[in-house]
Amino acid sequence: MKTSFLSLATILALTALPAAAQEATEPVTPEVAYIFNTLLFLIGGFLVMWMAAGFAMLEAGLVRSKNVTTQLFKNIAAFSIAGLMYWIVGYNLMYPGDGWTVPGVIGQLFVPKTVDGVASAVVGDGYSSGSDFFFQLMFCATTASIVSGTLAERVKLWAFVIFTVVLTGLIYPIEASWQWGGGWLSEMGFGDFAGSTLVHATGGFAALAGALVLGARHGKYRADGRMQPMPGSNLALATLGTFILWLGWFGFNGASQLAIGTVNDAADVSRIFVNTNMAASAGAVAAMVTTQLYFGKVDLTMVLNGALAGLVSITAEPLTPSIFAAVLIGGVGGVIAVLVVPLLDRLKIDDVVGAIPVHLVAGVWGTLVVPATNPDKSYLTQIIGIAAIGAFVFLTSLILWMVLKATMGIRVDAESEITGLDISEMGMEAYPDFIQAK
Amino acid sequence: MKTSFLSLATILALTALPAAAQEATEPVTPEVAYIFNTLLFLIGGFLVMWMAAGFAMLEAGLVRSKNVTTQLFKNIAAFSIAGLMYWIVGYNLMYPGDGWTVPGVIGQLFVPKTVDGVASAVVGDGYSSGSDFFFQLMFCATTASIVSGTLAERVKLWAFVIFTVVLTGLIYPIEASWQWGGGWLSEMGFGDFAGSTLVHATGGFAALAGALVLGARHGKYRADGRMQPMPGSNLALATLGTFILWLGWFGFNGASQLAIGTVNDAADVSRIFVNTNMAASAGAVAAMVTTQLYFGKVDLTMVLNGALAGLVSITAEPLTPSIFAAVLIGGVGGVIAVLVVPLLDRLKIDDVVGAIPVHLVAGVWGTLVVPATNPDKSYLTQIIGIAAIGAFVFLTSLILWMVLKATMGIRVDAESEITGLDISEMGMEAYPDFIQAK
Amino acid sequence: MKTSFLSLATILALTALPAAAQEATEPVTPEVAYIFNTLLFLIGGFLVMWMAAGFAMLEAGLVRSKNVTTQLFKNIAAFSIAGLMYWIVGYNLMYPGDGWTVPGVIGQLFVPKTVDGVASAVVGDGYSSGSDFFFQLMFCATTASIVSGTLAERVKLWAFVIFTVVLTGLIYPIEASWQWGGGWLSEMGFGDFAGSTLVHATGGFAALAGALVLGARHGKYRADGRMQPMPGSNLALATLGTFILWLGWFGFNGASQLAIGTVNDAADVSRIFVNTNMAASAGAVAAMVTTQLYFGKVDLTMVLNGALAGLVSITAEPLTPSIFAAVLIGGVGGVIAVLVVPLLDRLKIDDVVGAIPVHLVAGVWGTLVVPATNPDKSYLTQIIGIAAIGAFVFLTSLILWMVLKATMGIRVDAESEITGLDISEMGMEAYPDFIQAK
Repeated sequence: MKTSFLSLATILALTALPAAAQEATEPVTPEVAYIFNTLLFLIGGFLVMWMAAGFAMLEAGLVRSKNVTTQLFKNIAAFSIAGLMYWIVGYNLMYPGDGWTVPGVIGQLFVPKTVDGVASAVVGDGYSSGSDFFFQLMFCATTASIVSGTLAERVKLWAFVIFTVVLTGLIYPIEASWQWGGGWLSEMGFGDFAGSTLVHATGGFAALAGALVLGARHGKYRADGRMQPMPGSNLALATLGTFILWLGWFGFNGASQLAIGTVNDAADVSRIFVNTNMAASAGAVAAMVTTQLYFGKVDLTMVLNGALAGLVSITAEPLTPSIFAAVLIGGVGGVIAVLVVPLLDRLKIDDVVGAIPVHLVAGVWGTLVVPATNPDKSYLTQIIGIAAIGAFVFLTSLILWMVLKATMGIRVDAESEITGLDISEMGMEAYPDFIQAK
Repeated sequence: MKTSFLSLATILALTALPAAAQEATEPVTPEVAYIFNTLLFLIGGFLVMWMAAGFAMLEAGLVRSKNVTTQLFKNIAAFSIAGLMYWIVGYNLMYPGDGWTVPGVIGQLFVPKTVDGVASAVVGDGYSSGSDFFFQLMFCATTASIVSGTLAERVKLWAFVIFTVVLTGLIYPIEASWQWGGGWLSEMGFGDFAGSTLVHATGGFAALAGALVLGARHGKYRADGRMQPMPGSNLALATLGTFILWLGWFGFNGASQLAIGTVNDAADVSRIFVNTNMAASAGAVAAMVTTQLYFGKVDLTMVLNGALAGLVSITAEPLTPSIFAAVLIGGVGGVIAVLVVPLLDRLKIDDVVGAIPVHLVAGVWGTLVVPATNPDKSYLTQIIGIAAIGAFVFLTSLILWMVLKATMGIRVDAESEITGLDISEMGMEAYPDFIQAK
Repeated sequence: MKTSFLSLATILALTALPAAAQEATEPVTPEVAYIFNTLLFLIGGFLVMWMAAGFAMLEAGLVRSKNVTTQLFKNIAAFSIAGLMYWIVGYNLMYPGDGWTVPGVIGQLFVPKTVDGVASAVVGDGYSSGSDFFFQLMFCATTASIVSGTLAERVKLWAFVIFTVVLTGLIYPIEASWQWGGGWLSEMGFGDFAGSTLVHATGGFAALAGALVLGARHGKYRADGRMQPMPGSNLALATLGTFILWLGWFGFNGASQLAIGTVNDAADVSRIFVNTNMAASAGAVAAMVTTQLYFGKVDLTMVLNGALAGLVSITAEPLTPSIFAAVLIGGVGGVIAVLVVPLLDRLKIDDVVGAIPVHLVAGVWGTLVVPATNPDKSYLTQIIGIAAIGAFVFLTSLILWMVLKATMGIRVDAESEITGLDISEMGMEAYPDFIQAK
């Protein structure tokens, strides 16, 4: 097996690897490329779909046992609603095509997208529109999954459902359209390969807005200024959820190359797989070391969040970094996942599963650092993109949460919260056979 | 990104989309198509294999904690036995080829099928026989997995094992042969793309027969006419199982296209992925709304079964429906999953996990509705097919359960049932460290 | 559907199937083959990555509830560390290329491997180096995952971490290099297709060395000569883990064909999938029957280990066996998984999850039996290979464990062990809401 080595100097440089001279190759026929590209979207899509299970398990493991049924419901509901809303309005809103004007966009609402098939494929598209729709839908669903964790253990079930409808039908598609729909951010040169900001920070901003309007859980921040720990009820599920997300992320980042029909695309997808894995490993190890040094003991949930933060960090640019750069980017993400938690607690922002450090803060970090390895991107544009998306998502979410609060109410009453949402909201315990503390 | 829109009229029509004019394309070479098709079977096959884990988790989550070990065992045993039996007799029985006569079939029993490989592939077949065997085997295993849920918490371990041997070796292969082996149903024009009836209703009919012979769980239907709820012990596992099944279903339906070696096949597989996902989403949302309206509270297990019923419903024809039609078909499936449960209870048919509503009733619904979107199919033929398969599977299963009851006995004694099968049948608790209620 | 039948005589022979005459085929272009091969590595790689989750769930389910957090941590830590160490030193050490001399190897340490991509793919390689690195890395990680189960419930967290660093950075890459890096075992003709010995027995030998130095758990082997059962706390997780591993194994064995860019390779990969599944099914059924006969009751954890032992057994040669031979090979593995357990107990070797029977003993069995179906291999060479790898891994591991014991200590004190490692080592319970026995 031939191997090629790089000098340490090159590796340590946080820049893209120099492209080797391209040898002459016979092009793959458009038909074969079409099938490969479609296959990439389908495989990537089912891997990202699987992330919905990862969020469900992670969150079910990190809430207390009295709120598990509700948390599971919110996850499967968010995923299902995303499927319907993205079809009804989201996809057209995100990819307005020639109609990229406000009136055009409005006119296309509620004109559900079709997908080719039944002997109607267009080879010139490069992939089937159905596979693209399937893949893109899963990104919308991921955004929705992020929110439920932060707001766990106190948000009203139907308020969350309505928020999800708007998030997946309008908020996500509009901001994603700015970049992936060919909008102003993409024209400006903003770089966010697979969605550190477009998906993860977006979910995080929506969660942050919700957390502010909703307030902390009853008893979380005590009058004496100390914080009451409320440990998750099932760390095995939380770990399983993390592994599921890690697996799904290969689809999330890898298939965001959008093509595997050429030799170079295949090599790029591989590189993305490697960098994605390396950033996650580095995030986990960084969190392991940080918690040992910081708390004197390794903290499993922080290690899990470290791996996830590593993944979020590399998502904005998983292709151009060298492996070494990917390790650094992910490692910093892992440290962020640990250090932002006490910061949020000082601000009395109660984020049950740590979605804000992992998805929002690490997402911003990953997006900011893109120009370090991708010379085509500029720090200024990255900042503008993050600020624009952050402002839009945070403000629309804030308004929506405030409207929901003023109308139907978004928070269960104190008694229901103490009893647990599983009894008060759903009348159904997750683990009825087991005797539970308190 | 180019997009094409349809008029609302077209979308709302429950008919197939008009096929766009096919552009001229260069054909993919037979060798490349062979590899693509083989890959589709392998990917589809491992996704369907994964459904075995889904059934195991779903059922382990929905039984009481005292029966979890036994339920887990029955699932891994059924999957393993299916592998052996389908190899020993099932595959040859299902695909008798030129020997499609009763003597020919009998003659081929116990002549295990081989698979090509080791430099013996036949390009003209279009795919490797090994990949086909692998894929088909998983469908046989799925049928077996469906039965164990209904009969949980009271069936004898070895009686279930023997039933599974016959189901996977004889009952499933014979009825599946009628359609997929080129038998009389396929000649008549019956339509069941991936097995709403051939797999799911078949599992459901076998389960129904078993439930009737076995009787309800001790104490389930009380003398005063009221029903004793026996809630599942671990809804996190049940939710995980549902997500696993949802994921696996992309392989189940998608790879049932049997080919991805042309542009059109790739587009069709994509369309199937989309419709499969949409039907599941619609099933979950429909069950969510139905339980809220019907019971005044959202019921998580019903939402899970709603998603599964949506998946079963679309399985008979995931290709020709428009997205809108897929949503309707799956949504009705979700409503069925909710409304059939009280009906079964009124008949005192004790179906522990709801496999009969989900797999039998929604499977029949999905098969019946095929002609609404596929003009090549007729309602009459669909009814004949369902009736023939239903009668064959139900009667053979009923006889087998009765023979087993008369000989070895199929039900544990009352004391064992109250203690739980984990102690009485296996001597091994699933959660020995946790203090359990009762 | 055409099918071809073999005579019973051929099937019963434990030899390779005769290769059918190869028909003339048009070769797949190098570019298309490159993409297919790369895709195989990526799909295989993510399936093997998923096995890390399988080990985590299996082990978390088989330890007592007071040690679950620690076990989960060790699994995600081992996987993450493997990723970093294999990149920093392992991969270069394993594939030294032209520098296959001791000085050459040393010189290449700490020269991290790069992967192509960003318009630098080399078609002549046949696949992208990134996809190969990704796939190979997962094998290194698997080796690490095996060790944690045996040493559970008593090993110090940081001692395990340091052992893992050396195992994944040095021990595994060196012995794997002997065969897969083109070293002396491969030159001698040793056969170990996907790593029954190179991965599984290696993990098992490292675990065995650790178990000997560490000693049995407090109270496991009582003064009166009887053994104290310490049942696993969550058999649902253990079953889930087994299903995950079973799924991942299709990538482990299937992608070890290293190519799917020709028709014959595609047929061979399919054959490997089938044999892998068959060996697992046979292992599970064999363990089921053996435990019923031996203990009078079916034992779920033994059935799980039986399936895994079947998988390990077929891993050394999943291609050349007929299905019948695969069933025999896996079935014997399943019996081994059951019968070796009491043997280890008699030797007072305390293997918490049964990793030694499953990975070491069944791995050796699978490697020994390779010449029975592959006429190119010799029993003598197989024995030499197993002995060399076994001696190297066992001795280096033994020395390392002894050094760790003499310096930092490898075992928690008796009180910590009784309290549980979750409290003593991590200060974090896995299931804090549930009231637990003792």
